[in-house]
Amino acid sequence: MEPSVTTQQDIEQHLTDEVVASFARTPDLRTRELLQALTKHLHAFIREVRLTEQEWAKAIEFLTATGHITDDKRQEFILLSDVLGASMQTIAVNNEAYGNATEATVFGPFFVEESPLIGTGGDIAAGASGTRCLVEGSVRDTAGNPVPGARIEVWEADEDGFYDVQYDDDRIAGRGHLFSEPDGSFSFWGVTPTAYPIPHDGPVGELLRAAGRSPMRAAHLHFMVSAAGFRTLVTHIFVEGDPQLEIGDAVFGVKESLVKKFTEQPGDQPWTRTEFEIVLAPQQ
Amino acid sequence: MEPSVTTQQDIEQHLTDEVVASFARTPDLRTRELLQALTKHLHAFIREVRLTEQEWAKAIEFLTATGHITDDKRQEFILLSDVLGASMQTIAVNNEAYGNATEATVFGPFFVEESPLIGTGGDIAAGASGTRCLVEGSVRDTAGNPVPGARIEVWEADEDGFYDVQYDDDRIAGRGHLFSEPDGSFSFWGVTPTAYPIPHDGPVGELLRAAGRSPMRAAHLHFMVSAAGFRTLVTHIFVEGDPQLEIGDAVFGVKESLVKKFTEQPGDQPWTRTEFEIVLAPQQ
Ligand SMILES: [Cu+2]
Ligand SMILES: [Fe+3]
Ligand SMILES: [Fe+3]
Repeated sequence: MEPSVTTQQDIEQHLTDEVVASFARTPDLRTRELLQALTKHLHAFIREVRLTEQEWAKAIEFLTATGHITDDKRQEFILLSDVLGASMQTIAVNNEAYGNATEATVFGPFFVEESPLIGTGGDIAAGASGTRCLVEGSVRDTAGNPVPGARIEVWEADEDGFYDVQYDDDRIAGRGHLFSEPDGSFSFWGVTPTAYPIPHDGPVGELLRAAGRSPMRAAHLHFMVSAAGFRTLVTHIFVEGDPQLEIGDAVFGVKESLVKKFTEQPGDQPWTRTEFEIVLAPQQ
Repeated sequence: MEPSVTTQQDIEQHLTDEVVASFARTPDLRTRELLQALTKHLHAFIREVRLTEQEWAKAIEFLTATGHITDDKRQEFILLSDVLGASMQTIAVNNEAYGNATEATVFGPFFVEESPLIGTGGDIAAGASGTRCLVEGSVRDTAGNPVPGARIEVWEADEDGFYDVQYDDDRIAGRGHLFSEPDGSFSFWGVTPTAYPIPHDGPVGELLRAAGRSPMRAAHLHFMVSAAGFRTLVTHIFVEGDPQLEIGDAVFGVKESLVKKFTEQPGDQPWTRTEFEIVLAPQQ
């Protein structure tokens, strides 16, 4: 006797329908929508791959280990979301393409409130090691008009790949904020970004190893730009020629439009120079 | 200027494709298949519901809390899988409908190895409180031939809804195993099953409350039946007339074919009687 294929599909679909129906009386409509959609995709995944009971048990084990390594300083679930591209997809969904507005990318775990204020042409490195780098540009709206007084937060790792919050002492380095000038322009000094790995000594690192994937992030400099009437932009600039751009960024943050030329400047102490023209979308 | 809709869809699809491609060199082919399918469904979910960044953060928080309440005795990720019907769907996928073979259902967390052996007509209650119940039936193949010597494991909660492993002492009660007779028949005494709640003082309980769902399981008696040459059957029988069957079983374990009449028997000490004809699918 052959397994009855039609009946089997009916049984599986009926189960999915039953779970979806169990959420039908969720009082909050958005919560209902989320739980019903989650149920549908989760069940579709299990049915499509014909998940075995051992694989299911392995998934439970993986999530348990991910929960146990997570604490105040280590957020393994965010790492998991990052390496599955779920963080970046959420950013894509919430920062819809708008004309020529600058593209957004991942926020990352290293932003700190109340960074030092620096003036135009100031230095955010504050002792962070690395090749000095001058960043120049302007903030404009999608019609090309300057946006004066935009708050520009910048932060980056030193040449060893560490943010100041990863140092042993409480030193602040590699971060600061400034405001665009009346003509929209800005400029500051920092260090040329270098590639660094995401924490990979936990379950997510194991997953990357099993997949033969690199834990490295492409070299980048973080920006968060806000101004009244505009959508806040969280983004990076990347370094043209960084080999990690070819290998792949561990969290899928790279956008072609965000890769910038860092032009080397000769001298006793060589430095680099780059430009970043920022275009803000209107607040919707 | 309108948001450019086509470009936005392209951006989102391109990101999904990029993440899927990042798993393309996973050496183990099955792992590759699982990671790529997981990525597709996860991204489809985020895109379909237009997940907000706050909702994403809430999901991270929920998973973190689920990880932190999980320990050797409490497995909140399994509960989560259960209430989303993912456990039951995995069982459906791995126990495909086969002719008239008895349907499978969830295993649950209360099975214990090395339960006491009882003879035909023996008592598994061993002091578990409740209305006494006689269970009779037989084990057969899909052609109706008796399966002698099948190992029948049975376990159940007492009338307060507790399994022996939830008692304060090490007492064994409400569990045992027996073997089918040469004609395939079996019979044993237990207690009439009653409804009990899954643990609901954690994140999963919160989810059920937010959804207006009951944490109760419909009353049931667990079976695991194994015999050489047959697919091992993990299942329950449910009690016809149990109001929880209407309200809904918290983990979606109920199958129409597994609901049995527990006939009340009058007397000084009333008892019940039920029949369970077990049909095993062949080992594939
Ligand atoms: Cu899906
Ligand atoms: Fe970073
Ligand atoms: Fe149970």
